[in-house]
Amino acid sequence: MTTMLHVDASVRGTRSLSRRLGDAFREGWLAQVSAARVIHRDLAAAAPPFVDEAWIAACFTPADRRTDAMREVLAPSDELIAELEAAEVLVIATPMFNYGMPARLKAWIDQVVRVDRTFSFDLARGDWPLEPLLAGKILVLLTSAGEFGFGPGGVREHMNHLDPHVRVASGYLGVAETFHLGIEYQEFGDARHERSVADAMAGIPGLVAQVAATVRRGALGDGARRSA
Amino acid sequence: MTTMLHVDASVRGTRSLSRRLGDAFREGWLAQVSAARVIHRDLAAAAPPFVDEAWIAACFTPADRRTDAMREVLAPSDELIAELEAAEVLVIATPMFNYGMPARLKAWIDQVVRVDRTFSFDLARGDWPLEPLLAGKILVLLTSAGEFGFGPGGVREHMNHLDPHVRVASGYLGVAETFHLGIEYQEFGDARHERSVADAMAGIPGLVAQVAATVRRGALGDGARRSA
Repeated sequence: MTTMLHVDASVRGTRSLSRRLGDAFREGWLAQVSAARVIHRDLAAAAPPFVDEAWIAACFTPADRRTDAMREVLAPSDELIAELEAAEVLVIATPMFNYGMPARLKAWIDQVVRVDRTFSFDLARGDWPLEPLLAGKILVLLTSAGEFGFGPGGVREHMNHLDPHVRVASGYLGVAETFHLGIEYQEFGDARHERSVADAMAGIPGLVAQVAATVRRGALGDGARRSA
Repeated sequence: MTTMLHVDASVRGTRSLSRRLGDAFREGWLAQVSAARVIHRDLAAAAPPFVDEAWIAACFTPADRRTDAMREVLAPSDELIAELEAAEVLVIATPMFNYGMPARLKAWIDQVVRVDRTFSFDLARGDWPLEPLLAGKILVLLTSAGEFGFGPGGVREHMNHLDPHVRVASGYLGVAETFHLGIEYQEFGDARHERSVADAMAGIPGLVAQVAATVRRGALGDGARRSA
């Protein structure tokens, strides 16, 4: 069985373009991959709590010495990490908000990137002490932006802190390979936007096939769900 | 009178290095600038609400046609924007969380960057339809990172979505000039970290003087508090 974790970050319902991309990917995935399971984490329905000082203290307390209060503080993080651990394919569908992740998605990232759960820390490694504990996952990043030119060589590439940021953080979620498909020009509502939507939607079947092929050829490897 | 808005994003109390930098800046500022007023917005004490669909709908409804429910949804944003409008100097003290802003700080950004309040949108401007409505503010960004090499030419420059992201977003908050001072190496806890803390703390008085001089020479201009 292949498990896909589908994270939705848009607070818009039916009008959300990133949701439309995510839904199309999921439908294509279920049609193409046998024995596929989908976990849907909708950050609009319920946002993860913000990390606070108690959360940090609980994380840095060895698991066997945590109090009940500490375990309670970490419960939402435990739940979100369990969903991530179970998934070979992570689909994040998100709009660009002020040139980066919506705060809801950042709150999810801050809950799932966690010492001794998704990464380990060891100063014996020298200047790069962090290493992921999970491995071999595939990230499919589906985005929608109001403006345009955020890709490599684009006029707003230097302003883009959405997909490059998610890519960097996802290294600590065990992501080995990332695919990105995005819609731009949303606030222009012009022919360029229509083309961008059409191109992205047309790209979904190929993307599904590409990700399915990556899973099939075993790029996920044995370490795909290696855990702490 | 000069007003400084001091935003704290760290959830750590006395152990926070970004708070230590912010406190030192504020103390130096109060000692040096006569008739200085400080508004303190502590995002650890109370995080701004996440933007939701009702918030977006309310923003895009003309102010004179908003319902009471819409005005209620926008009340936290109104309050945060009023603090920003009142300030000539914006100090943001924040740790780096997973290579970017903590979700709390992003939630603040998402509440204060708002159409017809901090920026206007006009397709007649062509491919760059957004323009800030506020102007002439000075941003002082005080950061603390666990790792190192996030500056220009550094080994982790490509992973840095903290200060470059805040800079990009702050253009829509009327920021005309940005100063940045940061501590690195926190998780190494070694001599490099001690030196980084010492250097940053030693840099505060000069930074205060620089910002004060910028205010004095009128870089803020007449448009400093131009509002929508």
